[in-house]
Amino acid sequence: MTTTWPIPGIGYGGDYNPEQWPRATWDDDVTLMRQAGINLVSVGMWAWALIETDEGVFDFSWLDDLLDLLHRNGIAVDLGTPTAAPPAWFFAKYPESRVVTRDGVALGFGSRGMVSPSSPAYREAIVRIASALAERYAHHPAVVMWHVHNEYGAPVSECYSHASVLAFRTWLREKYQSLDALNHAWGTTVWGQHYTSWEHIGAPAAAPSVVNPSQRLDFARFSDHQLRQCFIAERDAIRAHAAQPITTNFMANQHWGVNLWEWAREVDIVSDDHYLVAADPEAEIGLAIAADLTRSLAGGRPWIMLEHSTSGVNWQERNVAKRPGEMARNSMAHLARGADAICFFQVRGARWGQEKFHSAMIPHAGRDTRIFREVVALGETLGQLGDVRGSTVHAEVAFLWDFESMWAQDLEWRPSVDLGHKERMRAWYEPFWRRNITVDFVHPSHDLTGYRLVVAPAQYLLSKADAANLDAFVARGGTLLASCFTAAVDDNDAVHEGGYLAPLSETFGIRVHEYLPLRQGDALRVALEGTHYGADVWAEDIEPLSAQTVATYIDGPVPGAPAITRNTRGEGVAWYVSTRLGTEGITTVVEQAVTDAGVSAPVTPPGVELVTRTGDNGSFAVAINHRDTPAELQLHGTDMITNLPIPTPLRIDGGAIVVVRLTPEHPSLSTPTESFMERTN
Amino acid sequence: MTTTWPIPGIGYGGDYNPEQWPRATWDDDVTLMRQAGINLVSVGMWAWALIETDEGVFDFSWLDDLLDLLHRNGIAVDLGTPTAAPPAWFFAKYPESRVVTRDGVALGFGSRGMVSPSSPAYREAIVRIASALAERYAHHPAVVMWHVHNEYGAPVSECYSHASVLAFRTWLREKYQSLDALNHAWGTTVWGQHYTSWEHIGAPAAAPSVVNPSQRLDFARFSDHQLRQCFIAERDAIRAHAAQPITTNFMANQHWGVNLWEWAREVDIVSDDHYLVAADPEAEIGLAIAADLTRSLAGGRPWIMLEHSTSGVNWQERNVAKRPGEMARNSMAHLARGADAICFFQVRGARWGQEKFHSAMIPHAGRDTRIFREVVALGETLGQLGDVRGSTVHAEVAFLWDFESMWAQDLEWRPSVDLGHKERMRAWYEPFWRRNITVDFVHPSHDLTGYRLVVAPAQYLLSKADAANLDAFVARGGTLLASCFTAAVDDNDAVHEGGYLAPLSETFGIRVHEYLPLRQGDALRVALEGTHYGADVWAEDIEPLSAQTVATYIDGPVPGAPAITRNTRGEGVAWYVSTRLGTEGITTVVEQAVTDAGVSAPVTPPGVELVTRTGDNGSFAVAINHRDTPAELQLHGTDMITNLPIPTPLRIDGGAIVVVRLTPEHPSLSTPTESFMERTN
Amino acid sequence: MTTTWPIPGIGYGGDYNPEQWPRATWDDDVTLMRQAGINLVSVGMWAWALIETDEGVFDFSWLDDLLDLLHRNGIAVDLGTPTAAPPAWFFAKYPESRVVTRDGVALGFGSRGMVSPSSPAYREAIVRIASALAERYAHHPAVVMWHVHNEYGAPVSECYSHASVLAFRTWLREKYQSLDALNHAWGTTVWGQHYTSWEHIGAPAAAPSVVNPSQRLDFARFSDHQLRQCFIAERDAIRAHAAQPITTNFMANQHWGVNLWEWAREVDIVSDDHYLVAADPEAEIGLAIAADLTRSLAGGRPWIMLEHSTSGVNWQERNVAKRPGEMARNSMAHLARGADAICFFQVRGARWGQEKFHSAMIPHAGRDTRIFREVVALGETLGQLGDVRGSTVHAEVAFLWDFESMWAQDLEWRPSVDLGHKERMRAWYEPFWRRNITVDFVHPSHDLTGYRLVVAPAQYLLSKADAANLDAFVARGGTLLASCFTAAVDDNDAVHEGGYLAPLSETFGIRVHEYLPLRQGDALRVALEGTHYGADVWAEDIEPLSAQTVATYIDGPVPGAPAITRNTRGEGVAWYVSTRLGTEGITTVVEQAVTDAGVSAPVTPPGVELVTRTGDNGSFAVAINHRDTPAELQLHGTDMITNLPIPTPLRIDGGAIVVVRLTPEHPSLSTPTESFMERTN
Repeated sequence: MTTTWPIPGIGYGGDYNPEQWPRATWDDDVTLMRQAGINLVSVGMWAWALIETDEGVFDFSWLDDLLDLLHRNGIAVDLGTPTAAPPAWFFAKYPESRVVTRDGVALGFGSRGMVSPSSPAYREAIVRIASALAERYAHHPAVVMWHVHNEYGAPVSECYSHASVLAFRTWLREKYQSLDALNHAWGTTVWGQHYTSWEHIGAPAAAPSVVNPSQRLDFARFSDHQLRQCFIAERDAIRAHAAQPITTNFMANQHWGVNLWEWAREVDIVSDDHYLVAADPEAEIGLAIAADLTRSLAGGRPWIMLEHSTSGVNWQERNVAKRPGEMARNSMAHLARGADAICFFQVRGARWGQEKFHSAMIPHAGRDTRIFREVVALGETLGQLGDVRGSTVHAEVAFLWDFESMWAQDLEWRPSVDLGHKERMRAWYEPFWRRNITVDFVHPSHDLTGYRLVVAPAQYLLSKADAANLDAFVARGGTLLASCFTAAVDDNDAVHEGGYLAPLSETFGIRVHEYLPLRQGDALRVALEGTHYGADVWAEDIEPLSAQTVATYIDGPVPGAPAITRNTRGEGVAWYVSTRLGTEGITTVVEQAVTDAGVSAPVTPPGVELVTRTGDNGSFAVAINHRDTPAELQLHGTDMITNLPIPTPLRIDGGAIVVVRLTPEHPSLSTPTESFMERTN
Repeated sequence: MTTTWPIPGIGYGGDYNPEQWPRATWDDDVTLMRQAGINLVSVGMWAWALIETDEGVFDFSWLDDLLDLLHRNGIAVDLGTPTAAPPAWFFAKYPESRVVTRDGVALGFGSRGMVSPSSPAYREAIVRIASALAERYAHHPAVVMWHVHNEYGAPVSECYSHASVLAFRTWLREKYQSLDALNHAWGTTVWGQHYTSWEHIGAPAAAPSVVNPSQRLDFARFSDHQLRQCFIAERDAIRAHAAQPITTNFMANQHWGVNLWEWAREVDIVSDDHYLVAADPEAEIGLAIAADLTRSLAGGRPWIMLEHSTSGVNWQERNVAKRPGEMARNSMAHLARGADAICFFQVRGARWGQEKFHSAMIPHAGRDTRIFREVVALGETLGQLGDVRGSTVHAEVAFLWDFESMWAQDLEWRPSVDLGHKERMRAWYEPFWRRNITVDFVHPSHDLTGYRLVVAPAQYLLSKADAANLDAFVARGGTLLASCFTAAVDDNDAVHEGGYLAPLSETFGIRVHEYLPLRQGDALRVALEGTHYGADVWAEDIEPLSAQTVATYIDGPVPGAPAITRNTRGEGVAWYVSTRLGTEGITTVVEQAVTDAGVSAPVTPPGVELVTRTGDNGSFAVAINHRDTPAELQLHGTDMITNLPIPTPLRIDGGAIVVVRLTPEHPSLSTPTESFMERTN
Repeated sequence: MTTTWPIPGIGYGGDYNPEQWPRATWDDDVTLMRQAGINLVSVGMWAWALIETDEGVFDFSWLDDLLDLLHRNGIAVDLGTPTAAPPAWFFAKYPESRVVTRDGVALGFGSRGMVSPSSPAYREAIVRIASALAERYAHHPAVVMWHVHNEYGAPVSECYSHASVLAFRTWLREKYQSLDALNHAWGTTVWGQHYTSWEHIGAPAAAPSVVNPSQRLDFARFSDHQLRQCFIAERDAIRAHAAQPITTNFMANQHWGVNLWEWAREVDIVSDDHYLVAADPEAEIGLAIAADLTRSLAGGRPWIMLEHSTSGVNWQERNVAKRPGEMARNSMAHLARGADAICFFQVRGARWGQEKFHSAMIPHAGRDTRIFREVVALGETLGQLGDVRGSTVHAEVAFLWDFESMWAQDLEWRPSVDLGHKERMRAWYEPFWRRNITVDFVHPSHDLTGYRLVVAPAQYLLSKADAANLDAFVARGGTLLASCFTAAVDDNDAVHEGGYLAPLSETFGIRVHEYLPLRQGDALRVALEGTHYGADVWAEDIEPLSAQTVATYIDGPVPGAPAITRNTRGEGVAWYVSTRLGTEGITTVVEQAVTDAGVSAPVTPPGVELVTRTGDNGSFAVAINHRDTPAELQLHGTDMITNLPIPTPLRIDGGAIVVVRLTPEHPSLSTPTESFMERTN
């Protein structure tokens, strides 16, 4: 991934599907694109049937025409492979390649028609189409990047077809080598599942009761692996002909079906799709998680916001439109967190089909609309931020993010249906976001050097090796802060020998005797330094060994017992929070853990998001006011849009964005003069 | 449909299934029928296996006996074909004829066992049984009408079997002639669905994601067509032998799966089934919609209330029984809105089976019950209303009712799950019902001449041609009143070129830039002439062109922007309401639109339903007091039950009904002396 | 069932699955078992694949080792047959034996892998494994009992496979002898279902609408029968070799899928599994129902609590842990109600699999935990209660409990979804539990001699013969108390000739004209002796014949009409409550019916559960204080733990249990000096 960035300046554009329109419209579109400052479009993603009109029969004429047109107009192309939607002829010829659900339903054509990633016919077909495209366009001057497939794992990530079963057996043989090892890993002595032949193993399809969780976890890993093998097959087929960087669009903090840590290793450039959760009045926080996670997947290097939306989407229950300015705030938040290209789904809104109520850069109502005016304005802004390109974001705090743990936690029959990793991740991230303390995401096996504080909001599954990595981080002086239900099981979803949390028992200085879920709607309180904080859903019966009890339960299942503990371990400190703590309690604990860790944070007024990128061209602060009222900020530097020095204090209007090239002598924003609690309210 | 009415006087009776009882019970039943004044029963609907005991083997003996018995007792027969429930032997011999669900489940026997309407074996079988019945009973003196099948479309209207797929392809070839036309109509360039062969097209069964909405809409049309072809096949088989009128029972405002406008053309007499929504404390409003729609389907001619219930039904979650007098009020409301026969499901309640908790004319507890006493009383009343037969109802207001639009709106991925056509239809109908302004229903393609006001509560889909029809109505002097989300798409469910509402943009004098759904539970207010009215779920970003802004948004997504507009177009006026307006706002807007249109309305006290029928024998007003307290009404005429002149004012007891033969010099009830708002409270 | 009890003293132990652990752990386990006083463990239930490693190939070595080890340590064994989980090789070889759902999904391996009880291959296999085990261990000194299968009916009781259809036809031929009889019983004239061949009859799988309820009810009976035939096949295979008593674990008041009255006849010793409903803050009441029902199934003889939990389970939505002392209170409540052995699932908690979050006697956190300490303490207590063994419980009150009626009531399309038998059973049981009036459960066909009061909270289905049995009970002087919706249908789920309740019309002295469900959330009141009591969901239109109206409806659908009636019939009295009466009303009616019946009750403070067992060794009162505050009780006798005379009054600490050997001259606890109403608050 030492790939050269494919575009000069900040990339700007979107998915473009001109095959939906008459040829005359293409010329209009290109005119509008130029008006909007668009310099990058993705094409071809849904055009398999128009390129390979029958098996092995290709027609590139319209695509030649399109790429030439775009190139003549100075618009670079991210050329997609159309493998997320095999053609009707493929389904008709290879019906056995269809995705089969857990209940045995073979999913047909007529939709975003993905087939089984384990289908041999599909593998053959994707290599053929990817090779054909690469061979023809490897040297087309418009093509600056390849975009394989679309959103791997959506809309379906698991397939229970016969081909999948055969492939699963192969994958298992590779992983376990012996049936003994598999039987042990899966605990097949439970419920009489001992295997005496590889041929007896199936996919974890519908069964009379809940299916073996170890098997299901392995099937999730297998399914991820199979999808990735499809990507690799296409990537290698392209690389055989073409030298441009290759990407595929992730869905960080939006889809949890594929293990993006593994995927990030395989792409040249990390790209992400992100859509706001319309029901969330502070959807910008979920966006920040997604952007921070994407940057972390990219190893800190710049990445591409490949798809977001100019306004509402079409697939949520209530597709709330974006308010005026919200599109720009979203775009700039992505940029602030490391994106060097800002693209949308899609350039021109589709009149037909499933996504016709999805917003676009050119909406149904045309150019004389609020949305297109904002698109043009955003293009102008991005055009002035070329110096930001290539700069990076620094974080002292890391959150553990582990897809396999999430898959395992989401299986059936956990102690309480009310405790979810998504909710906890968001709950613990929020005070950092409000305080503008930048956060990276890491896998628990990663090298944690350089971080002062590691937060584990939802690390249900933790291997012994990864536990040792965390313990070493603490021993070396790091601060570790874990939420409840941590390290319950090992990487086979088996309870750790010695009980819950056993491999981190010395790290946290406690033992966990029992999980104590609450009844629906019940709440409890914990006392921390004389103040009572609310919590719900979950408590634990913990026994302090070396840890100090920081907070005790006031009520709930174990009144008087320890609720939050703090342990000194080697040079570091480890906090354990044994309940589903509410917002105020989390903020208090984070404040103390941040202090323990010596993490610095900038001073910003409530509602203002502030992130700094630093690179060869200097340091750049992006300040976004998410509130409707103006705010004041202490910064020193030059406004990158006006090129004028900014006043001190800087006043940011409600809803406004300011990008500041920081004065080199004042690059740091971190002067923690105000109390942490005040900042987060 | 110049059919002679099959019965003298008002028809009265119900479904009669004597095959469930010993022969001796039949004699008792006929005695009770005579006691109740019953003159019409439907028989045979569930008796296929008893008539055709094996394929091609017939036994008519019991049916001969039954028809003779009924005829001897002066009870006319509506003879049913039993094709809604093919026999066990049919299922056993033709398992491939079973209905297959979207998920691929073949639905078996043991229920109301409908099979696929596209099954060739089924088509052959229904023609055989219908022919055999017609041949035998064409000249039986008891048989005055034929009743084909039962409630087409319920319980299943769509079938995804192989036979259905083959038939769908044939239907598509017929409709589109070329694959190019189909590809264009379905927008198959979206999500890579381009077809290169008719053989690749399937039913829109379960797929990895949402299926092409144009395909689903066509499949709904196809499914409706297939069911109708079954009806036509039976009807023509009967007509080859028999001259009596042929009907089938609709389910207006109760089942939306078949396009009743198309069906109404095929029957000799329109019949309807209607059951109250038990959860609705004002279920009489839904009944009125059903009755008005049925009358409109019948082209204004009299129709048959073929099935309603004497008390509770069995298939709702909580089957609330009817209160004393409610059965008569329901019956008379149907009669007031055009029904010339009042029938029930069923004469004698079934002891066995799925419907045993459904009420009947003769309930399980027998003749010495409230229900049977009310049945007898209703028979007496109807016996005195013979002069009403053949009279018709006049309306100046028409509501658009378009099944295809409803099918399209019900598909997935619309902007908000909270906006439904059923709710809007009811919400806009209510103020007319409360004000006793009679309403017809029309399809947007219909000739609108003669109406003063056309209301479009839920016309999501609108073809360009139908839009032109509405525009011409306005230009000629009509008033058009449309709710939000109108004319979003064309008849392929594709967004109109030019954007939402484009083909009516000049009619309403506005452009719609964007739909703005609200979050769950959020509300907003609009200001209209200084008063604030509540709304929720939906707003739109609209730009007035020639329209005047009548109301603005106070809050919600676009505070200060236009919410309700009024446009003068040619000789007429067009109102657009861009939000899901609440009851009070709707009432206010309706008041103004009614005034614009010059629609007249009678003066009635709250809670009294009043409808007038006029015919060769005079004008008849039916007044129904739905409240428990007495009300007074200004009418001039003779009470048709007592044959005495009615006093002025006429006092109607709580729950009572009065039918008045109006004095010719005072036929009009319309003296709008009270404010509209007061009447609707 | 004159079986000798298999263990000296009270049995204590649990399921033990050492195959999940290294051999070394077995020795540790046995040490802990001895420390806890464990004298009985169940083994082998999930070990089919480890015993029969391939079809017909057996390996008993590890089981030999295990049984020897247990025997050496004085721990008796309940040896399980592993037939609830056929091995992977069985599924692979006989895929057609899989359970098929109503929707046609064949359920696979990987779970608690039950197959179709109608599969011939399965029948053959279970006889082979049961025979092999019995042959080998018939004379092993550790084996004191055989435990066939596990929880028959869970997780699936019905199977719709082809094998099931064939077996269903055979069962129907046996039951009905002629198709005429079947057609009549099923009312196949309804909805056109008349059968002309046995070969046309199928399982009541998914159909276009609701399936014939008579057919579904027969299919439920058939499914129960097939499971029981599997049990009998295994039992007889074991008995051919071995003489120890044979049991299988029931799930009384927890699973309703099998007719335990029929099963109880087939076992030598009745065993039960019971798990608290975590969402219920008074789950001890559901436990008491389960225990009373189990004792009744055992014909009053002692039974085995074969599985309950030391703390939380894993399969509920929120698996609330037991509070300190709650395990002992639960255990002693079972013992008080007739259990002579107290066992748990399971001895050592599984690290792997679906149940790893289920509590155990040895929890994941090991011996140094609250749970293991309580396990040891309970073992000590039970060790001192040997004299209680064999004593029995006496009841003057019987509740009707009829699985077939429950199956029928649970079918679709009943008058209201809000009226359920589980809720009514609990609601009517509660005042008896609070008053410590011991209750037996009986089937309505049972000999009711000896009972003073029979309560029918949910007897929806009642055959004419069983109605005659109840009528005779009343005529002979008994008191009968029935809730609403009683005797609606006969044993074919057909409405009784003459209407609802017809066969008990003379018993109750009323006729039921109509059921009157309420809308969701609606409530009503009834007036009884001047006091108003709340009710909801349901009312009935009843006509008193000879009955006296005890309470009238204040509001609801029939204000002023009779709500509760009392009829004198022969020497007895019959009460009918026609609405879903609330707690206070139920308590009042029970008080009056108890008085009518002359039922005696002990005097106990609120929150204290008190049950007496009497046998050859004397009378033993078990008092359990479920509240957190102390209570005082008037008893005379000796504390069985301390062997000291108890003081008068006896003070029981909050949460504590006292077992008293009653002084022979004061065996009776029944001095009703306080009002019933006060006791139940």
